[in-house]
Amino acid sequence: MDLTKKSIDWKVTATDGEARAGILTTRRSMIETPVFMPVGTQGSVKGIRFEWLEDELDARIILGNTYHLFLRPGIDVIRRFGGLHRFSSWKRSFLTDSGGFQVFSLTDLRKLTEEGVEFRSHVDGSKQFLSPEISMEIQAVLGSEIVMVFDECPPGDAGYDATRASLEMTARWAARSKARFDELQVSEPGAIATGFLCGGDKNPVAASPGSDLTGRQSLFGIIQGAGHLDLRKQSLDRTTQIGFDGYAIGGLSVGEEKSVMYEVLDFIAPQMPKNAPRYLMGVGTPEDLLEAVSRGVDMFDCVIPTRNGRTGSAFTSRGRVNIRNAKFARDDSPLDPDCGCSVCRRYSLGYLRHLHQAGEMTASILLSHHNLAFFMDMMKKTREAIRIGNFVSFRYEFLNGLGNNEKL
Amino acid sequence: MDLTKKSIDWKVTATDGEARAGILTTRRSMIETPVFMPVGTQGSVKGIRFEWLEDELDARIILGNTYHLFLRPGIDVIRRFGGLHRFSSWKRSFLTDSGGFQVFSLTDLRKLTEEGVEFRSHVDGSKQFLSPEISMEIQAVLGSEIVMVFDECPPGDAGYDATRASLEMTARWAARSKARFDELQVSEPGAIATGFLCGGDKNPVAASPGSDLTGRQSLFGIIQGAGHLDLRKQSLDRTTQIGFDGYAIGGLSVGEEKSVMYEVLDFIAPQMPKNAPRYLMGVGTPEDLLEAVSRGVDMFDCVIPTRNGRTGSAFTSRGRVNIRNAKFARDDSPLDPDCGCSVCRRYSLGYLRHLHQAGEMTASILLSHHNLAFFMDMMKKTREAIRIGNFVSFRYEFLNGLGNNEKL
Repeated sequence: MDLTKKSIDWKVTATDGEARAGILTTRRSMIETPVFMPVGTQGSVKGIRFEWLEDELDARIILGNTYHLFLRPGIDVIRRFGGLHRFSSWKRSFLTDSGGFQVFSLTDLRKLTEEGVEFRSHVDGSKQFLSPEISMEIQAVLGSEIVMVFDECPPGDAGYDATRASLEMTARWAARSKARFDELQVSEPGAIATGFLCGGDKNPVAASPGSDLTGRQSLFGIIQGAGHLDLRKQSLDRTTQIGFDGYAIGGLSVGEEKSVMYEVLDFIAPQMPKNAPRYLMGVGTPEDLLEAVSRGVDMFDCVIPTRNGRTGSAFTSRGRVNIRNAKFARDDSPLDPDCGCSVCRRYSLGYLRHLHQAGEMTASILLSHHNLAFFMDMMKKTREAIRIGNFVSFRYEFLNGLGNNEKL
Repeated sequence: MDLTKKSIDWKVTATDGEARAGILTTRRSMIETPVFMPVGTQGSVKGIRFEWLEDELDARIILGNTYHLFLRPGIDVIRRFGGLHRFSSWKRSFLTDSGGFQVFSLTDLRKLTEEGVEFRSHVDGSKQFLSPEISMEIQAVLGSEIVMVFDECPPGDAGYDATRASLEMTARWAARSKARFDELQVSEPGAIATGFLCGGDKNPVAASPGSDLTGRQSLFGIIQGAGHLDLRKQSLDRTTQIGFDGYAIGGLSVGEEKSVMYEVLDFIAPQMPKNAPRYLMGVGTPEDLLEAVSRGVDMFDCVIPTRNGRTGSAFTSRGRVNIRNAKFARDDSPLDPDCGCSVCRRYSLGYLRHLHQAGEMTASILLSHHNLAFFMDMMKKTREAIRIGNFVSFRYEFLNGLGNNEKL
């Protein structure tokens, strides 16, 4: 196996308490951390054209969901295109999850064995099977820059013994994921996915700075253990023993109290390897992100900005705004007077409220855009604050602003 | 009354048979004709941000619907903003219909009298009333560049006597529309709508070339008469006797045979005033547009590009494409190889099909965008063909391409 090729490069450029600013370089893009990664579940960020993500929002990495893409359009289709980048036309980095979380949360009928998990597709009811090996094979075809190990995700309210059994399974699956991943980096599917077998690039969008398509994919391990600190430590130890390019914290923001999440982060994040990026999966609100950054987390993803945009809920520097509120009908001020995004520069609360009330698709488009802009801008300010050693007071003032909601 | 201020300027710059190329200048934009006007029913073109309409698609005029905007957000709200332009942030021209067509097609409960029509709102069931005077007052508040008279729209299958009675009512309503319109151009609501009473412009989008916000609105008359040629002639005579800035043909594309539409256009369009723009309301397909242009029509609007985009139907130079077709799943070619729009330059049939099948909003966004680009581009080519005296063969080749559909 030839594993000498570069996968990702990771460098901490500044710290402020536990908070870290860094630069994550993949074969396709240079990503400043802490970073928020917009979610493109089915190969598209809901309501947002890639053109906006590239230009104004400047997202350097987005998510794709293995479970969804595996079921539709299917891996044969994506292989035919030469990977998810060529299929979707997104030229910067993708992180793909392993499918585990969706199998355990979206499907009712499933049969779990040591080998893997059998389940029924939510799309057509067909019987399907995922295992660590199959997940790695799918993610090799997708050609994402960051691959996640296939983990078992127990319910948030699973007891101690069930959680321990689950994380032991996850640890064994992590080792199997790693073994198959390493094999794949030198065999054909990975090669196809990374574009070796494809001819010239018809797509006019240039590869991003830092692009190195001869590099291999990277693989992240996942730490489970729910709210049990000793199990979290066990999971961390077993995961770091295997060794990964980065480490994720799974199984949080799944219905537990906020205090549990912060307690787990307080405990586990500082113990995670300092020389690898730390990724908190599926989290969260602006408050959650800043709290997690202060505990040393570098990467985040969440559907909140786009999902809330579709339901008429906007994040602003002065707190949440419910666009349905009748008091906005005649308001010609922007959604967020402190926001410089293309939505806030141009459209009024009154107009956005009208579009939402009238059921116009552009309401979802514009609110999702603003919400993503808000998250991206918050992370940019976070990085700047860490670099100048001002993160504590930045976080205090920002969270204070969020609570000071005169509009809601 | 001061009616000396400029409303619109209209100039034919080339003719080719009955087909005309011209320039229509309003106080807000310079519009090359024949023109297709995208429909922004509720103050937004469905799925398309204004930024795309202004930049890539270069729409110089769009439609707003009086009926919809009257019911929601309501005229008080739009007056508060200083008109539809300031409310929506669209700085180029608006054409607003009179509300007549929607009242007669969308509402079940209505009571028609000489004075006007009482109906129930489809939004909240409330009792509402529209008359020629009220329609003019609403459109003055909206501040559109082109105002339509309030007409009665009989069902397409109304008999001869009913159609005649209806067009006589429409003629009386046209005279009342004109009288109230003229009054309004010098009184406060029109002044508010045109921005006289508003301060500086906060919106960074510059007014378009030809903008002259001191100019008044313009008013178009509507010719009815269904498929009865003698009634069409009567309606034309009564409408031109009143005198308008432009003339529309109503009551076509409402379920009648195509041959009826072409027969009416053959008969009536060449008799319409040569020194005023001719507008065929609510039409239609690419074929319809080219047929109507060849008979001397200058202006069109239709929901087809965006509505079809939402249902997965695309217009291409090789005919219609149904994006759901399974044969496109692995097709990496663009929707239309002859199209230079941002969707065709970047996205493949396979990816667009996937987005549509997966129910992603971006499918509607991208297909609506391409369809609008196709219509705008077709009209641009139409204008060029007329200018160089090549319209007959252009039309033949273009329609031939549309019929030559290998993809469907």
